[in-house]
Amino acid sequence: MLSGGLDSTVCMAVARRDGAERLLAVTFDYGQRHRIELERAAAVAAVFDADHLVTPIDMRGWGASALTDDTIDVPAAAPDSGGIPVTYVPARNLIFLSVAAGIAEARGAGSIYLGVNALDYSGYPDCRPEFIASFRATAALALKRGVEGDPLQVRTPLIDATKAEIVRLGVELAAPLHLTWSCYRGGPAPCGDCDSCALRAKGFAEAGVADPAAL
Amino acid sequence: MLSGGLDSTVCMAVARRDGAERLLAVTFDYGQRHRIELERAAAVAAVFDADHLVTPIDMRGWGASALTDDTIDVPAAAPDSGGIPVTYVPARNLIFLSVAAGIAEARGAGSIYLGVNALDYSGYPDCRPEFIASFRATAALALKRGVEGDPLQVRTPLIDATKAEIVRLGVELAAPLHLTWSCYRGGPAPCGDCDSCALRAKGFAEAGVADPAAL
Repeated sequence: MLSGGLDSTVCMAVARRDGAERLLAVTFDYGQRHRIELERAAAVAAVFDADHLVTPIDMRGWGASALTDDTIDVPAAAPDSGGIPVTYVPARNLIFLSVAAGIAEARGAGSIYLGVNALDYSGYPDCRPEFIASFRATAALALKRGVEGDPLQVRTPLIDATKAEIVRLGVELAAPLHLTWSCYRGGPAPCGDCDSCALRAKGFAEAGVADPAAL
Repeated sequence: MLSGGLDSTVCMAVARRDGAERLLAVTFDYGQRHRIELERAAAVAAVFDADHLVTPIDMRGWGASALTDDTIDVPAAAPDSGGIPVTYVPARNLIFLSVAAGIAEARGAGSIYLGVNALDYSGYPDCRPEFIASFRATAALALKRGVEGDPLQVRTPLIDATKAEIVRLGVELAAPLHLTWSCYRGGPAPCGDCDSCALRAKGFAEAGVADPAAL
């Protein structure tokens, strides 16, 4: 599952390192205002010589998220309040994982790789390890291959990593970090100000690495 | 969740009986060859004075199912072999439930109603009670409302019913059974021959009710 962001790109490099010879990058066009993600995902997939499937799931009509509703502003990064921010998209990872599970079953893929992490993250409930564990069990019950005793593997190799560790791992694995896009806002350049830009900047700073995608 | 078939239409009548005043019918356009379902769903939603949201999720490119891949024939009904039939669509209910959960959270709906049943059914793994139970737990972890202690209700009032019981319940609740469509094939009239037609005919026969949608 490749958004075109930092985490999913490093995750793809991990999949390759793990020995995945054939990679199918699945990207979701869900009406996100940061549509440049989609172009970056295509560029990243090409670097990995992966097939690329862009799946449209239009969430704009649902409302309720700053990432898909133009009437809700993306806020500046703020100290962690413990709450779930307005950039939360209802059930996003649940939906994306479910679609990826369907595609994996149809195509005969053995594993899904998902670059979630629950340390330096925006506080979305569907990034937490307990959600991922529960999804694994549900997918095993939903899919033919699970019934047949060969459950789909759902791998989240970055879930316990800090953003700095993800940056370092990306550098180590020569992931194309220069192609990645993190900004939640839809501008032509990263705003440097939203939660996602702030987390990215913190990660590169703590890793002691210059962000190759910075202007 | 309203496909336009018998079960989901009766399920909608149950939701109304349960006291649901505002109903949002969610129908999936997933590339099914029996596209007449979509028209029937709209007609059923209108009878219930429900809002109707048709959500496109194109599964045709995935292949692997007779319902979405024109190169795979829909077979005639056969005695239960205990296997999963070729009309199985990978992860269909998992995906549909996940999307419905996202819509419910965005719109502030308290419950999802799903007309699955695990008695007179085609043997799909994602119709079984153990799958539904696992999905409930996963959705509670994925959604903001679950984190906040008010998990989404996922109701499957027909899960233990026979097809005949579903027909009788539909008659009792005055559900618009004449508008429903069950045939898996894409013809202008029900084929009478596929698994879904066979289950429907058996249900009406055992209930002692004439099928109002029959020619």
